[in-house]
Amino acid sequence: MTELKNDRFLKALLREPVDITPVWMMRQAGRYLPEYRATREKAGSFMDLCMNPELACEVTIQPLERYPLDAAILFSDILTIPDAMGLELRFAQGEGPKFDKPLTCKADVDALGVPDPEGELKYVMDAVRTIRKELAGRVPLIGFSGSPWTLATYMVEGGSTKEFGKVKGMMFDEPQTMHKLLDTLAQSVTSYLNAQIAAGAQAVMIFDTWGGVLTPRDYKEFSLRYMQQIVDGLTRENDGRKVPVVLFSKGGGGWLKEMAQTGCDALGVDWTLDLADARAMVGDQVALQGNMDPSILYAKPERIEQEVKTVLQSYGKGNGHVFNLGHGIHQHINPDNVGVFVNAVHEHSVKYHEESSVER
Amino acid sequence: MTELKNDRFLKALLREPVDITPVWMMRQAGRYLPEYRATREKAGSFMDLCMNPELACEVTIQPLERYPLDAAILFSDILTIPDAMGLELRFAQGEGPKFDKPLTCKADVDALGVPDPEGELKYVMDAVRTIRKELAGRVPLIGFSGSPWTLATYMVEGGSTKEFGKVKGMMFDEPQTMHKLLDTLAQSVTSYLNAQIAAGAQAVMIFDTWGGVLTPRDYKEFSLRYMQQIVDGLTRENDGRKVPVVLFSKGGGGWLKEMAQTGCDALGVDWTLDLADARAMVGDQVALQGNMDPSILYAKPERIEQEVKTVLQSYGKGNGHVFNLGHGIHQHINPDNVGVFVNAVHEHSVKYHEESSVER
Repeated sequence: MTELKNDRFLKALLREPVDITPVWMMRQAGRYLPEYRATREKAGSFMDLCMNPELACEVTIQPLERYPLDAAILFSDILTIPDAMGLELRFAQGEGPKFDKPLTCKADVDALGVPDPEGELKYVMDAVRTIRKELAGRVPLIGFSGSPWTLATYMVEGGSTKEFGKVKGMMFDEPQTMHKLLDTLAQSVTSYLNAQIAAGAQAVMIFDTWGGVLTPRDYKEFSLRYMQQIVDGLTRENDGRKVPVVLFSKGGGGWLKEMAQTGCDALGVDWTLDLADARAMVGDQVALQGNMDPSILYAKPERIEQEVKTVLQSYGKGNGHVFNLGHGIHQHINPDNVGVFVNAVHEHSVKYHEESSVER
Repeated sequence: MTELKNDRFLKALLREPVDITPVWMMRQAGRYLPEYRATREKAGSFMDLCMNPELACEVTIQPLERYPLDAAILFSDILTIPDAMGLELRFAQGEGPKFDKPLTCKADVDALGVPDPEGELKYVMDAVRTIRKELAGRVPLIGFSGSPWTLATYMVEGGSTKEFGKVKGMMFDEPQTMHKLLDTLAQSVTSYLNAQIAAGAQAVMIFDTWGGVLTPRDYKEFSLRYMQQIVDGLTRENDGRKVPVVLFSKGGGGWLKEMAQTGCDALGVDWTLDLADARAMVGDQVALQGNMDPSILYAKPERIEQEVKTVLQSYGKGNGHVFNLGHGIHQHINPDNVGVFVNAVHEHSVKYHEESSVER
């Protein structure tokens, strides 16, 4: 077991004192980096890259070579589980993800099994193992999955959607079929994340990209309930340390209180609410991860630095803040601006932690 | 002056007692109706339809022939103002709106003038006059405009966007240029809506489709501030009646309190919060318009009816509710389901108004 040299990310998620605010970015291994685009080219398709543990490891490490980030996140896709279930994922040029065999009825849902994480999904676990070895304790590795509701939207729609007509049609007219699907997905995600933890993931995050398209009632019944089921079923320890669990429902700013009650350790927060207000909502229950508007990275360095200060001040003093963007980094961002951002978080966060060991 | 036969929509917006809850739908004149598609075919392009007062009137009236809706809304587009400013709007097949001459710098912004509503935009005023005549007092006519921020996003991006990189880049790096643009737009929208009111619009609504992509701070500075400027400058009377003003920021559920303080009469609410919570936020300051999930119209009639009851109950007894969807109706909805919806609102809302004249 390699010693973890930088654990401020894990400590902050558990609301323990740290020296400076840890920072990472959603989609930090991505298209804004020329070296990512080169590896992607070498790999073939996007899924070829996901399925090649050595290349997935390579792109996972790339942003850490450029910036002093405090965590690495497994390079993979949220749709690996439906693909392993037999829906045949592909990425059509400029169209986003497509399933050749979307779910259309109860019989399709009944036929789904829980994929074996060390079977059809072994390539993901191999990537986790390869990355952990390559990281050699430099920073912790985050594993992740899509939420059951978010996976269900793609599985029923057959791809991306703006209107969610098919998946909501099933939810409204055949709630039992939808619950069956979500339960199968919750079991699958639980097993998938536990396997990632066994393979070496030191924290896990559940991306509920589409929870925010639901009414408050439907969010609780069809999204949050199944994230709760996953949180209840996760192995929360690895290498003798607690494995923190982060939930992120994009557009879920109004539901942070309910999310915090699932027993997760931290919540991702998008940029449509102030961290000060988010913190007031959740109190001491969970840490918060976020929430700078990703578009600020289009701005000039001095404006980026100013915005970092604003977000740090909004969270304020005390433990429990992991700095992140409120959503994934955009593909046309200048990589130099990311350096400005990451350094600014470290530089300007010192004063928010100076007294934390005393205050504890 | 023709007498208004059904004024429950106007009364509800002003929080006066009504017999049943009034109902209309955003995009009620739209592609889900076969008769709309036929007129659209006849007109040529989408903008040809907007610019033809007789045909714009025809599609405005179409949904009223099918359903007992309590308001008509002018058929037009939110991008008429930037088009009149010379940005050359066109709708490319399957691509949404495009401007051939987007704004790229301060000089572009400085060159913009306030369009003459009875000049370049006379076709809109002619449509209002034609529709008012054709309605003959059947229901009130709603005029509308996009919000300055929403118009600015299209004008700077050159069309639709998911990332808002250009417009936010200008906002962050050249805030003075952005404020100049928004001020010109606020003046233009004020003059445009006042002309619609003079031409016969009996209520007006400002659609802030993209306010919800901003942080709370930027929303107040770059969107709400300019809607406030418009509200302050509107003529609030027509035919001896007050002309109510409705503001709608999609995704703005967290900012209802601030929106209510602009002096508008009502707020549009999307489906991501409960009307009961929205009502608690705004108190007696404004009426609320919304907020059923538009996707419910994909469901079976009995499920639609059940959802109507839920939304009515969430608002509860008392004045100040206009029933609407939380966003525009989707194009693939079965028109029969709309009938179920509209009738259910009228049928099941009686009991929420029985005592309102006593309570007054």
